[in-house]
Amino acid sequence: MKLYGGIEAGGTKFRCAVATSPNSAPVAKLEVPTTTPDETLGKVIGFFKEHDLKALGIASFGPIDLRRESPTYGYITDTPKEVWRNTDLAGLFERTFGVPTAFDTDVNASALAEARYGAAQGLSHVIYITVGTGIGGGALVNGEILHGLVHPEMGHLPVPRHPRDAYRGYCTFHGDCLEGMACGPAIEARWKRPASDLPIDHEAWEIEVYYLARGICAMVYAFSPQRVICGGGLMNQKKLFPLIRRQVVEMLHGYVQDESIIHHIDEFIVEPGLGNRSGVVGSLELGRRAEADTAVSWQDSNPVNSHSR
Amino acid sequence: MKLYGGIEAGGTKFRCAVATSPNSAPVAKLEVPTTTPDETLGKVIGFFKEHDLKALGIASFGPIDLRRESPTYGYITDTPKEVWRNTDLAGLFERTFGVPTAFDTDVNASALAEARYGAAQGLSHVIYITVGTGIGGGALVNGEILHGLVHPEMGHLPVPRHPRDAYRGYCTFHGDCLEGMACGPAIEARWKRPASDLPIDHEAWEIEVYYLARGICAMVYAFSPQRVICGGGLMNQKKLFPLIRRQVVEMLHGYVQDESIIHHIDEFIVEPGLGNRSGVVGSLELGRRAEADTAVSWQDSNPVNSHSR
Repeated sequence: MKLYGGIEAGGTKFRCAVATSPNSAPVAKLEVPTTTPDETLGKVIGFFKEHDLKALGIASFGPIDLRRESPTYGYITDTPKEVWRNTDLAGLFERTFGVPTAFDTDVNASALAEARYGAAQGLSHVIYITVGTGIGGGALVNGEILHGLVHPEMGHLPVPRHPRDAYRGYCTFHGDCLEGMACGPAIEARWKRPASDLPIDHEAWEIEVYYLARGICAMVYAFSPQRVICGGGLMNQKKLFPLIRRQVVEMLHGYVQDESIIHHIDEFIVEPGLGNRSGVVGSLELGRRAEADTAVSWQDSNPVNSHSR
Repeated sequence: MKLYGGIEAGGTKFRCAVATSPNSAPVAKLEVPTTTPDETLGKVIGFFKEHDLKALGIASFGPIDLRRESPTYGYITDTPKEVWRNTDLAGLFERTFGVPTAFDTDVNASALAEARYGAAQGLSHVIYITVGTGIGGGALVNGEILHGLVHPEMGHLPVPRHPRDAYRGYCTFHGDCLEGMACGPAIEARWKRPASDLPIDHEAWEIEVYYLARGICAMVYAFSPQRVICGGGLMNQKKLFPLIRRQVVEMLHGYVQDESIIHHIDEFIVEPGLGNRSGVVGSLELGRRAEADTAVSWQDSNPVNSHSR
């Protein structure tokens, strides 16, 4: 039986799956650490060669090139992970397997998966952010994945500094952008111990919540999303959710007069409905859409890559 | 001959026009100050009654209600301008003239007008910001006007504080958000004289450019637009453009690797192609689309109001 293949290409590990449909239990799975392109991609290709693929979706860490007309379409571009710079992902898999292959950011794929199968079903304006070793954000706007000139880079939104925070920031590009102040390594650098060692009543979390709330407010003012889904390793600390929600409501200060925010913030800022599977399910869904681009529903009539320029 | 009617409903004045097509010279125009709804809307209705309308577009200051299913669809909602709170605009004109009537934010309409007739022709991902007595931003994403839960409120993006700026901010909701720090009244309050009295080498402009550049960077990271158009009274000070461009490039710090930003920033951050007519042309274009929602081009097949929820 022909299967959909999906790759969540992360900075720490690659998670691969083959499945009959994006949200069904995978027929097979593989996790390999992200080391060098040769080593990691070799194992990934080996895995998929054991299966009969009908389409493949790749949800990648970035920055990536999504411009169909670009000579480096399908590449990871200027990532801080040097050995992965200028790595052709989509082209490699397309040539190797000869099946319809879709390519997008991990967070865009997660937003898509959550809107189709998870915590944002039926919604057309959705933000997915991941908070972990980095911070990233993907968006669905009018039911379509957002690209634009390149793709969103919401981890790098400028944020006001917490009044008691003198940390200079972890981002090699911007210092004190959202990612620079609130990613896992920033917490560790600021407090000289891993985030996982900091008790929930530690000041670290007040500062973390401050930055994440400001980032989410920026997304609310920019996109006016119907829901914001927060995933990633740091968000496994579930106690952060009520703190973030309270701070977002305080910060918006009644300006956005909508029931979803004023009375239902618990349903506005939420955990991923797919748990840590959003990225993999998203990659399978990208594969499904790459295959189904002749279908007629509103979702399928706009294949993900048709708006990349 | 039947004409399109357009209303740019601004906080200072209402600008109205009737025209055979959105970007042709208007057959007739009216400007009335924004006083009370009774007085201002009475004059506007009087003006349009002298013409034979086929459709009407309204591009309004906000916040406004764009949710088609809402009992207050078409209303100005919680504006700081108290006498205009909860004013039904779209319903009033629809009932009075009985023609297809479209309703959107002034800045969304301006983004639409610039993409169709102005400085962003042929582009699908466009930001229009206005900097004047307030700051607002509209967006075209995948060629469609952005609504979402409510509509974008980019004037209220959180921004980092300029290191030498102790001004507490003008925004009654947030204090030191983008609008709070960079709108015309904020400049006047910070320096105790009107912005127009401050020479271009005054420190005021360095601080102004700092905030506007950070706001634009936030929009770039959120939307990845192909072009950012800056209009509004303050931007008539053309010397601000090169300063803003330079600061945006510095702030992005090479992170967004695209020719448009690295080599063509002059074409990335631009003046409105329609000058101060973006809003009025946008309102006429909204009217044209309200009438033409059976047409077949990509722009017409997605009438503006079909994505408001």
